[in-house]
Amino acid sequence: MADAPSERCYGSEELRRFTEAVLGAVGVPRDDAARTADHLIEANLRGVDTHGITRVLVPYVRRIQKGLIQPRTEVTVVRERSSSALLEANGGLGQVASARAMEMAIEKAAQTGCAWVSVRNNNHFGAAGYYAQMAIDRDMVGMVATNGPASVAPWGGSRAMLSTNPIAFGIPAGEEPPVILDMATTVVSRGRITLFAKKNVEIPVTWALDEEGRPTNNPNAALRGTLQPVGGYKGYGLALVIDLVSGVLSGAGYGAHCGGHLLEYDRPAQNVGSTFVAVTVDSFMDVPEFKARVDAALREIKDSPRAPEVERIYAPGEIEFETRLTRLEGGIPIPVEVERDLRALAAELNVPFPASNHTGPGC
Amino acid sequence: MADAPSERCYGSEELRRFTEAVLGAVGVPRDDAARTADHLIEANLRGVDTHGITRVLVPYVRRIQKGLIQPRTEVTVVRERSSSALLEANGGLGQVASARAMEMAIEKAAQTGCAWVSVRNNNHFGAAGYYAQMAIDRDMVGMVATNGPASVAPWGGSRAMLSTNPIAFGIPAGEEPPVILDMATTVVSRGRITLFAKKNVEIPVTWALDEEGRPTNNPNAALRGTLQPVGGYKGYGLALVIDLVSGVLSGAGYGAHCGGHLLEYDRPAQNVGSTFVAVTVDSFMDVPEFKARVDAALREIKDSPRAPEVERIYAPGEIEFETRLTRLEGGIPIPVEVERDLRALAAELNVPFPASNHTGPGC
Repeated sequence: MADAPSERCYGSEELRRFTEAVLGAVGVPRDDAARTADHLIEANLRGVDTHGITRVLVPYVRRIQKGLIQPRTEVTVVRERSSSALLEANGGLGQVASARAMEMAIEKAAQTGCAWVSVRNNNHFGAAGYYAQMAIDRDMVGMVATNGPASVAPWGGSRAMLSTNPIAFGIPAGEEPPVILDMATTVVSRGRITLFAKKNVEIPVTWALDEEGRPTNNPNAALRGTLQPVGGYKGYGLALVIDLVSGVLSGAGYGAHCGGHLLEYDRPAQNVGSTFVAVTVDSFMDVPEFKARVDAALREIKDSPRAPEVERIYAPGEIEFETRLTRLEGGIPIPVEVERDLRALAAELNVPFPASNHTGPGC
Repeated sequence: MADAPSERCYGSEELRRFTEAVLGAVGVPRDDAARTADHLIEANLRGVDTHGITRVLVPYVRRIQKGLIQPRTEVTVVRERSSSALLEANGGLGQVASARAMEMAIEKAAQTGCAWVSVRNNNHFGAAGYYAQMAIDRDMVGMVATNGPASVAPWGGSRAMLSTNPIAFGIPAGEEPPVILDMATTVVSRGRITLFAKKNVEIPVTWALDEEGRPTNNPNAALRGTLQPVGGYKGYGLALVIDLVSGVLSGAGYGAHCGGHLLEYDRPAQNVGSTFVAVTVDSFMDVPEFKARVDAALREIKDSPRAPEVERIYAPGEIEFETRLTRLEGGIPIPVEVERDLRALAAELNVPFPASNHTGPGC
């Protein structure tokens, strides 16, 4: 008898329709459900499963049901100039408000060369790289950042006063995959430490601090403590700057004042602040010349001599680009325990769950 | 008999006049000499001696004398829109072209909310934080980045294909010192490793790679190899993005194509590309409210519980802010071996060298 499969693969279009139906069932308007589903499925396609339906769909539904995310995302313009805007997301879906903000940055940049749009009262917006890709699609450079619920101590501190504050950059290329750098300003995510805690395995001492602010290799002590910033004081500096620019400048929560993490349903709504910047390539250089130069720069790096035992040098976003091609073809693998939760959600909301196309590790 | 002093302190205004006279003696126009001197003296005042007259003045003079830096900085506008510009620095002084670029970004941002100015054919521009401070002085958020001569391997590589590509952010505050994050995307500078090599002391294996791309604790092997990016692949990603945005987008050199390091007089001019972004605070929030929020955010962080044996939590730029106050009062310490080089330069150019105000370690 064959072993029970640990995961099954589902076609991305089937999962997209499922996700749209789930969101529609809790009151999200059709276009907003489509945008949110597109974001989550793109994350899964790119292998960023921490930001796909595999992790966030159930919490999003619960947060909508509990009033922590407004199903109708009413974005209002608070201040506006030719190259800037401040948007109020009114606690709606982060994906919807954020995509609207990046669209606005793109439209303004097309007129003036560059634009910066901030969003306040935003919610978890998923993978920052998604919005960078929106700029890339319009031959622009994109920059995206957000703050969030606190999980990182300041450098020298022991209490969580900053979020993992991710920052993303998107740069169009020609024949090479576009460059998408999408990085948290911590060494690892809390989710990664949770995996070690479940297996009762020690973590490297560079990942987290215990409650007193001491480096720890105990994953449970780490989960009661804080995440370490990447690169020590440099990552702390980046996280703080992102908090000031995204949270303080927009009028959103900042520091320890943002609401709860995705699964903390007993804490207030997140009220995060997010930043979207678009810069038009053709304000500096004709687009074909730029893309040829980016291709040349990437190829020189990827063809440069490698360190021992390194098989390949990657550009940021390249692995995700290739994973996307694989998963578009072979489907998105859903671990069986995640599938169980999604099927329960489907049953609860009376939404059909798609059939898997095949099974097995990686499918 | 007292020990010979290891350094002597000089008043910043005396050193400023000395620096202006030195630059004037090699053909730099008065205003440009004043701007460059202001930058270098500000770096020394803030304790960033690697970017002050203590390290770069002699190389700047030599590069001017050898034709690697043009003493007259003729900045021309290549492309211009309401919120963007591409400037050609024509190989002039990095401080002059870069200050002009940041001024232009500030003027444009004042009109539109946000602006992005790129510079090509630039030279070593010193401390990135200086230009961020220019934005702060106008109640704007500043962002600055540059590429430079290669010294960093891509992640998984062994050949220098990227520079230390610094990035700086400046954020105005109210009563607190403004936040200035000014960080290279490497763990440490080459200069720091040079100090260890001189003393024949091992370096941490996280700092550098040898010529084959292996982590090394041998400072001499490190100097023949490459610097490690901060935070591993994340620092590599940041460095690459800065190279593409600053070098490739501007039409400057990129990757391994920038010219020589400051002391490499037998290699071509640098042709670096640099980026200057200004964002007006009052496009998002009234300035007094913003500054009060920044103050509150910084104080909450600085007053938060500390890790064991930590005496104080700092915000980025705070140590430099305090060093500046001390050095404005007590003078800038110049190590005796640096003073010897500066005196020789003064004699060569027939420029008077100022008198020290007092002596001793830290003066």
